[in-house]
Amino acid sequence: MEHRDDINNNNCIEGDIEHDGDAWGMAFERRSSHTSSLSERENGDFREPLLKSRSRINTTSQIAIVGAKVYPIESLDYEIIENELIKEDWRSRKRVEIFQYIFLKWTLCLLIGLFTGLVGIFNNLAVENIAGFKLLLTSNLMLKDKYFQAFATFAGLNMILAACAAVLCAFVAPAAAGSGIPEVKAYLNGIDAHSILAPSTLFVKIFGSIFGVAAGFFVGKEGPMVHTGACIANLLGQGGSRKYHLTWKWLRYFKNDRDRRDLITCGAAAGVAAAFRAPVGGVLFALEEAASWWRSALLWRTFFTTAVVAVVLRSLIQFCRSGNCGLFGQGGLIMFDVNSAVPTYNIPDLLAVVFIGVFGGVFGSLYNYLVDKVLRTYSIINERGRGFKLLLVITISLLTSCCAYGLPWLSHCIPCPLGLEAEECPTEGRSGNYKNFQCQPGHYNDLASLFLNTNEDAIRNLLSSENKNEFHIPTLFIFFAAIYLLGIITYGIAVPSGLFIPVILAGATYGRLVGKLLGAFSNLDVGLFALLGAASFLGGTMRMTVSICVILLELTNDLLMLPLVMLVLLISKSVADNFNKGVYDQIVEMKGLPFMDAHAPPYMRHLVAGDVCSGPLIMFSGVEKVGTIFQALKVTRHNGFPVINERDAPELCGLVLRSHLLVLLKGKKFKKNKELFGSEFLRMFHAFDFAKAGSGKGLKVEDLDLSDEEMEMYVDLHPITNTSPYTVVETMSLAKAAVLFRELGLRHLCVVPKTSGRPPIVGILTRHDFMPEHVLGLYPEFNRHK
Amino acid sequence: MEHRDDINNNNCIEGDIEHDGDAWGMAFERRSSHTSSLSERENGDFREPLLKSRSRINTTSQIAIVGAKVYPIESLDYEIIENELIKEDWRSRKRVEIFQYIFLKWTLCLLIGLFTGLVGIFNNLAVENIAGFKLLLTSNLMLKDKYFQAFATFAGLNMILAACAAVLCAFVAPAAAGSGIPEVKAYLNGIDAHSILAPSTLFVKIFGSIFGVAAGFFVGKEGPMVHTGACIANLLGQGGSRKYHLTWKWLRYFKNDRDRRDLITCGAAAGVAAAFRAPVGGVLFALEEAASWWRSALLWRTFFTTAVVAVVLRSLIQFCRSGNCGLFGQGGLIMFDVNSAVPTYNIPDLLAVVFIGVFGGVFGSLYNYLVDKVLRTYSIINERGRGFKLLLVITISLLTSCCAYGLPWLSHCIPCPLGLEAEECPTEGRSGNYKNFQCQPGHYNDLASLFLNTNEDAIRNLLSSENKNEFHIPTLFIFFAAIYLLGIITYGIAVPSGLFIPVILAGATYGRLVGKLLGAFSNLDVGLFALLGAASFLGGTMRMTVSICVILLELTNDLLMLPLVMLVLLISKSVADNFNKGVYDQIVEMKGLPFMDAHAPPYMRHLVAGDVCSGPLIMFSGVEKVGTIFQALKVTRHNGFPVINERDAPELCGLVLRSHLLVLLKGKKFKKNKELFGSEFLRMFHAFDFAKAGSGKGLKVEDLDLSDEEMEMYVDLHPITNTSPYTVVETMSLAKAAVLFRELGLRHLCVVPKTSGRPPIVGILTRHDFMPEHVLGLYPEFNRHK
Repeated sequence: MEHRDDINNNNCIEGDIEHDGDAWGMAFERRSSHTSSLSERENGDFREPLLKSRSRINTTSQIAIVGAKVYPIESLDYEIIENELIKEDWRSRKRVEIFQYIFLKWTLCLLIGLFTGLVGIFNNLAVENIAGFKLLLTSNLMLKDKYFQAFATFAGLNMILAACAAVLCAFVAPAAAGSGIPEVKAYLNGIDAHSILAPSTLFVKIFGSIFGVAAGFFVGKEGPMVHTGACIANLLGQGGSRKYHLTWKWLRYFKNDRDRRDLITCGAAAGVAAAFRAPVGGVLFALEEAASWWRSALLWRTFFTTAVVAVVLRSLIQFCRSGNCGLFGQGGLIMFDVNSAVPTYNIPDLLAVVFIGVFGGVFGSLYNYLVDKVLRTYSIINERGRGFKLLLVITISLLTSCCAYGLPWLSHCIPCPLGLEAEECPTEGRSGNYKNFQCQPGHYNDLASLFLNTNEDAIRNLLSSENKNEFHIPTLFIFFAAIYLLGIITYGIAVPSGLFIPVILAGATYGRLVGKLLGAFSNLDVGLFALLGAASFLGGTMRMTVSICVILLELTNDLLMLPLVMLVLLISKSVADNFNKGVYDQIVEMKGLPFMDAHAPPYMRHLVAGDVCSGPLIMFSGVEKVGTIFQALKVTRHNGFPVINERDAPELCGLVLRSHLLVLLKGKKFKKNKELFGSEFLRMFHAFDFAKAGSGKGLKVEDLDLSDEEMEMYVDLHPITNTSPYTVVETMSLAKAAVLFRELGLRHLCVVPKTSGRPPIVGILTRHDFMPEHVLGLYPEFNRHK
Repeated sequence: MEHRDDINNNNCIEGDIEHDGDAWGMAFERRSSHTSSLSERENGDFREPLLKSRSRINTTSQIAIVGAKVYPIESLDYEIIENELIKEDWRSRKRVEIFQYIFLKWTLCLLIGLFTGLVGIFNNLAVENIAGFKLLLTSNLMLKDKYFQAFATFAGLNMILAACAAVLCAFVAPAAAGSGIPEVKAYLNGIDAHSILAPSTLFVKIFGSIFGVAAGFFVGKEGPMVHTGACIANLLGQGGSRKYHLTWKWLRYFKNDRDRRDLITCGAAAGVAAAFRAPVGGVLFALEEAASWWRSALLWRTFFTTAVVAVVLRSLIQFCRSGNCGLFGQGGLIMFDVNSAVPTYNIPDLLAVVFIGVFGGVFGSLYNYLVDKVLRTYSIINERGRGFKLLLVITISLLTSCCAYGLPWLSHCIPCPLGLEAEECPTEGRSGNYKNFQCQPGHYNDLASLFLNTNEDAIRNLLSSENKNEFHIPTLFIFFAAIYLLGIITYGIAVPSGLFIPVILAGATYGRLVGKLLGAFSNLDVGLFALLGAASFLGGTMRMTVSICVILLELTNDLLMLPLVMLVLLISKSVADNFNKGVYDQIVEMKGLPFMDAHAPPYMRHLVAGDVCSGPLIMFSGVEKVGTIFQALKVTRHNGFPVINERDAPELCGLVLRSHLLVLLKGKKFKKNKELFGSEFLRMFHAFDFAKAGSGKGLKVEDLDLSDEEMEMYVDLHPITNTSPYTVVETMSLAKAAVLFRELGLRHLCVVPKTSGRPPIVGILTRHDFMPEHVLGLYPEFNRHK
């Protein structure tokens, strides 16, 4: 399911670990590039793809013998004070600089909001115009009874658009395929995978999404918008550095994990706000689904960003309303203006709502299950090469076109209802509720009204309550079956594809179908039923509650249905939680991203921290020989090394980071003898030299060029050592250590011995040591307790 | 400003520390009961009321010489696995018990929602009927030109109602005075002050709030509703234990900090949901303002609770609509149905909005400043005794009545506008836009329409956009000045008084006034201006953004004004943040509650953990003499003691809690010699014996009755020792230690030495050691850096 096998294939060493050696470790399992290992595992357990096999390799590999862990992932360090040096710098920072920092932070939020809003509008405009042109062409040919030409035009245009999207995705940025929400979620959890937020990914995400949606696939632009927002935030947060010296100087304040992740959280929220035109929903989405750590300051900044998006969208839509935007529709800030009056509801109505919730939950979890299976199948196809990716996309495109054009023939023509106010029947022009299709004048084909429309228009039709007999039961049934299955098989192909729209579409059809069937027992409106059905599917697949509720609220602008929507969401989530995880969590797990859950699994209470730490460690002395450091950096991929002071007894001095060591060695300020730097260090280096570099911009071991003479010299590690790393005793329960690790967002956790008289450090725990795959690999007896 | 001086006055020992020795330490500064010390400090610095003076006492007191800290506050331990014993129990727990736990948790949420909803409706019903009767009586007398009798009736009824509220507050539960939100916020931060959530407080909060609001004070029922919800949650979470054995057995699962605080968070959210009929707003309020720790599971449960509230409110309001509820008005689920169409706005409109935001922020922060000053003055009056409290309430009541009845005479009579659809003019009956007051028929007094109405009706009138000339500029100006000042002087008297309504009222008047003044430049509606004004005041005083935005959204049911509301909130909060803190934070600080902020103040970076730790510590051996333990418990008020194992070298075994020691000693399972319990311990005690007791229900030292013989025996502390407490080295920066302490919600943090060869523990950090008052007391040189 990962489409990045073509890039960086050269630096893929040592089994299935991708790591390009920069400061931002890669967190991706590159299963897709290892056909053999994958096909071996096909019948095996897919739930432990990454670490089990790796640790098996490690225990026998050279590297494991030399040092310790080979997990090259540098996870998030959420500590405020990373080392004394930066702390010193902040102390002496002038007021002007602090003002610059604050001003810049807000400016960046403003820019993120602005650009995400503009991209959102651009995306909508492009899709509406391309898809509208395509649909107009088709329906004009239909009117002239040229049915075959109509199909050829329709399917041909779809295929061309799909191929464009697939080519972009396969050749330019494989990371842009799929929804992007799981990746953003993983990033905010501390998993850095730099191509995920690269400029090329942004480019492909925007244009791939436009082509994909315009190609008539049942995919949404919401997930891609979230990813786009995150990419924009990433680019703005570290961008401009090479070209504009001024920007570079200012942006150096953002060269740390905390600020970067804050910006990307804002970007994700802005994406949702732009996709659904739901500013509050965007904030809640970022809070509930995206972010792993949350502070109230972040709420405040996220809110500002989404407010900017809302203003941008509003102004541009106002501009477009005057007809300047081609075929762009009449949408206001609210997408689906349902306004179905909610009557007083009674017991049968509530029972119907409970029914919708329960079965929505079942269908939702089934959806997740099937998506998972399909993704695993597709990953086998996709990894064969770009040609296969393209072929898969074209096949699905053809299938979609056949369904969209073919299935409406099964439906009968329905005479137009009388007394329509807002709509014309049959529809002339691009979109509308009453598509003529093959029918004689004065009639419409209800299935065509759903299939031969953009996804948004189809949803709007389903939620409409003007004419409750607009869609017949067989129509809804066929559409539901088709859309449910097409949605499942479409996710995972090499185009940017969101999950929101297909789920809402299937859910709304399901809800309207139930509403028609139960119409005799309930006096709720069919449009309201459709909305509740959409809510139940969203709850069943995504397992978000508050944010979906608010998004639906902002989409439909109807507060009075809030209690019913809440009830449906609660039921469907509760039901679906009994079967499997939310769809995004599933994808994160399947991609092998080492995601740290907020809760430690129960079996970790039976283990202690010392149980999962493996040694021997590579340690440095306070003043260490350059050659030793260089060798250690070259041979291992560790990102943190303990520093030991040997006086009377060995004593833990602290922890030093790989990236800081590289900067130190690059600086070449070495001494002939074992002596301390003292205050002269501050003259040699500037604090910002040690600030975290952007994705792929950090130093690598290969960048060092040290002579043999230099190798024999010494360097004082004290100035760059974090002298008070967080520590736990080896007898602390693993669950408790995991809570510490997760809550503080650590990258390394030092394990110290309980009893005295032993070496001062037992081991270092990293993110990978807490992964179920690793722990259960070491202690398989807990598997049955799981 | 604290009104609890009358209760527990007997056990007030040792300066200004209140502590009744139970497991839930009291967190209240009892400044109000110390007239002398207060008057001494009157001209001094009020910002360091609690700890500075206390540490001055401690360093010279007996207790400080014997042991260590005297801060008796046991703060929140958010650790999952508190000690091995409870962990053991969870391990062996049957599936049935886990099901019971989950079922009970949801049932409790349901019940919290149900009861809070019912109380919310009851509160509304009572207020509307009492206040409505009072207003009807007054206006009937006015119609007969009996102006003096009308005033006497009006003022007399107000005074009687106010006196009722004050008597309840002063004699039954002083903790019920004020808003209650600061106390709930402090509780959720880990500060246990048991009378805050006691049943008597609940009772007074409900009835005191009804009388207070009905008495015509400019106070809200929103803050009290939040407190009421929290009290209900607290009662349900630990209630019924004495009477019903079954309930007791089940509720034992909730005998821990985490579950209790979760329930109280749900209660607070339910309170907001019931007060504003805003379920999503309630969740966001709990998230943004109330809770200090947040988990996504909590989001989910809070949401369920507020959904229940929404359903309860909806059903009961439906019932009341049919006229079964006396004078209860026509409110739907949405309180203020503004529905003012938002036109396309342009630059002058936006400038007007910015203007509103900026000055709203200034007025809001001024409000906070004045409330602070008034509270400090009132606390001097209130602590003189109950009579003074009562007198203050009656004075304010009389002042309010004079303003409400007297000021409308300044206004001219206005002829009724023609062509009104929804309203009659002049109003007949209880509430309405056009109060006749002293005018001839066919005229109305616009100031009376604002003053002689319930606060909700006044707000609704201000937000209405039907007749933009309904209120004249002088009227609005007088009303604004009166309401602004009355709101400030009313908060702090001995009645339950929310801040939301007075702030919204003043803000809406301000907004409408600005709207009238800028009417020529802007084409926005005056009703919309009033809403924006209310938003700006809320942002300026409370400093919440997202939750206020959503609450206003749910109150007004108008999504289209969202961008403008957001803009105003952002501006007013930003402006006000330059002057002072939010009003609830101010009150928390003033009450001396040791609130742990999410961010450590910058000067803490210059200190290390060892700097603030003071010794000598009281330590126990692994197997300790009973007499030693008893003495330590009796002499100190520490809630945690380190346990040291003496083998070759002393070694930190772990931490033991006072409450667990008390249970152990009460059990009297002592040994003649120094020997370990081993597995027999599990036969002697049940894990739930050590579970955290409810407020005021824990064992006290005085409950122990040990003979001299028993004093000489030994007891093994290992089974109740937490063998892996979180530790930091003494050289860790205090800021970093504070982050650990706060993020993990610790109660005790052990400081261990950096170098070997020293005692295995340097000290224990508690919540108080991180308080600015304590740290700055020890290191006054940082005061200027602050």
